[in-house]
Amino acid sequence: MKLPIHIDDIRAASERIRSRIHETPVLDSRSINAAVGSDCVFKCENFQRTGSFKFRGACNAVFSLSGKDAGKGVVTHSSGNHAAALALAAGERGIHADIVMPEKTLSNKIRAVESYGGRIIFCRDTLEAREKTTTDVVSATGAIFIHPSDDPLVMAGQGTAALELAARCPDLDAVLAPVGGGGLLSGTATVVKALYPRTAVYGCEPEKADDAFRSLRSGTIVKPQSPDTIADGLRTALGVNTFHVIQKTVDDILLVPETAIVDAMQLLFERMKIVVEPSGAVSLAAVLTHRDRLARMKLGIILSGGNADLNAYWHLLRSRMG
Amino acid sequence: MKLPIHIDDIRAASERIRSRIHETPVLDSRSINAAVGSDCVFKCENFQRTGSFKFRGACNAVFSLSGKDAGKGVVTHSSGNHAAALALAAGERGIHADIVMPEKTLSNKIRAVESYGGRIIFCRDTLEAREKTTTDVVSATGAIFIHPSDDPLVMAGQGTAALELAARCPDLDAVLAPVGGGGLLSGTATVVKALYPRTAVYGCEPEKADDAFRSLRSGTIVKPQSPDTIADGLRTALGVNTFHVIQKTVDDILLVPETAIVDAMQLLFERMKIVVEPSGAVSLAAVLTHRDRLARMKLGIILSGGNADLNAYWHLLRSRMG
Repeated sequence: MKLPIHIDDIRAASERIRSRIHETPVLDSRSINAAVGSDCVFKCENFQRTGSFKFRGACNAVFSLSGKDAGKGVVTHSSGNHAAALALAAGERGIHADIVMPEKTLSNKIRAVESYGGRIIFCRDTLEAREKTTTDVVSATGAIFIHPSDDPLVMAGQGTAALELAARCPDLDAVLAPVGGGGLLSGTATVVKALYPRTAVYGCEPEKADDAFRSLRSGTIVKPQSPDTIADGLRTALGVNTFHVIQKTVDDILLVPETAIVDAMQLLFERMKIVVEPSGAVSLAAVLTHRDRLARMKLGIILSGGNADLNAYWHLLRSRMG
Repeated sequence: MKLPIHIDDIRAASERIRSRIHETPVLDSRSINAAVGSDCVFKCENFQRTGSFKFRGACNAVFSLSGKDAGKGVVTHSSGNHAAALALAAGERGIHADIVMPEKTLSNKIRAVESYGGRIIFCRDTLEAREKTTTDVVSATGAIFIHPSDDPLVMAGQGTAALELAARCPDLDAVLAPVGGGGLLSGTATVVKALYPRTAVYGCEPEKADDAFRSLRSGTIVKPQSPDTIADGLRTALGVNTFHVIQKTVDDILLVPETAIVDAMQLLFERMKIVVEPSGAVSLAAVLTHRDRLARMKLGIILSGGNADLNAYWHLLRSRMG
């Protein structure tokens, strides 16, 4: 069965969004290499516009719309990085974006969406309420729904980060990316396996939200059960499209404990001087957790986002400093 | 009178140290541009090895030593970034480094020097005690003293950051760099005025340590008086060499209040996702403070270092968040 995305879709996405996104830097740190015992390069999507890789996929989806569809505007439900990304992408195309958010969303996330010109529609904090509210918007306005992860155009857009990484670093033994809904991981694996079939691709997931791990093991999509991980961007389930790609292309899912996520954030602060949110640091956390398995390999590590609230960030790191 | 350094010295330094340093990224942020009303590019020396630009100058000085001199080892007095930088540069050349530090130096600074293989010699926390202890080391061992800023080879090494910036961004209206001892500022101004004579060069200094400002105004080196700024790297005085260059090449010194330094650190954390220590953020603080004077200009901003202790960092930022 044909996979939902192909390397050519990602190349096309890269052309489409090139002038709008940052080609984010690839950094490395000898002191982190010494600390983990492998040779790491970091693709810094925390420096992407809106603070995460999500802008790539949102931009690809929004700029793929026909003129007629674009005129209807776009809508999504998200309390996180996809919300800000879609608001900005829509703003750049000059179209309307409705963002459905739970009432108790953090104020900095709300301000981000508003600053990019998105209209926020609040709903109760259940998946049912979000989906119902979104459906209501679509019915009332005809707006195009842009899923945060399971849309092939979104998946292809997210894959452009790995395309840039692969061009800079052709000799990686493995590429690691966080997995929540699976948009980033499916796009990443599609690129890597097309260009370098012998390079391993690992999804990285909190133990406390191990639904992708269990989905791959069981061969069917498993929903996360009360995923109370600090990596709030990774609490979502795989979709039909992302699961299909991941099942065919990803070598394994590496689970990480919560403490490793904070340790990774601290290493990134102290050794690399960069701010990475918990979800974004799960890929380095996997290197810390699975040190023996990855020892002496050359690793491409995608740091997916940096939208950490300063207070929450410090309290997390302090909890590990004792 | 011939200046102590020339653009050719900086070009030579760049060749000498190229394989050992990071060519640090130049980043920009549309949201910071919108916040400050000018068009900023940031040269990220917080990503330099050892966490600051100081590694450039130390490396140039250490690798300029003759084989005979190198065999004697090097020595300096510093409680900060030059200490770690010299320890690593010496380690890379395989020679001995003695670092004279005040007894009450922060433990993370001590650990950094030790991790790079430097030997620490503690002394009392006065300039006299530091200089006496250093002189004693030189007398006893014959080690070569590498001044943190007023050595022409150190100054030339520090200028290589601006050389990289100028190659990437030839069209700047002004370049801003922090000024403490003046090594970075003198190297920066030498590069900029040689390549782009019409580009302005501003030194950026805390109001609470305004000795470079007063030195330029009075035409003679003024010592800082109880400089209790949070920008601990900028509490030192200009030297004869750095003052000479700065007097001939720098357009002005821009003073900043302490609050602007913290505001700059917060902007860099929240908008650019990078960690910059107080001294390193003084250049952006100057843009915040002198907004009208710099409005609508294209600015090259050197962020000089990122060695912030996590606890101290958070307490500073929290103080401004209320």
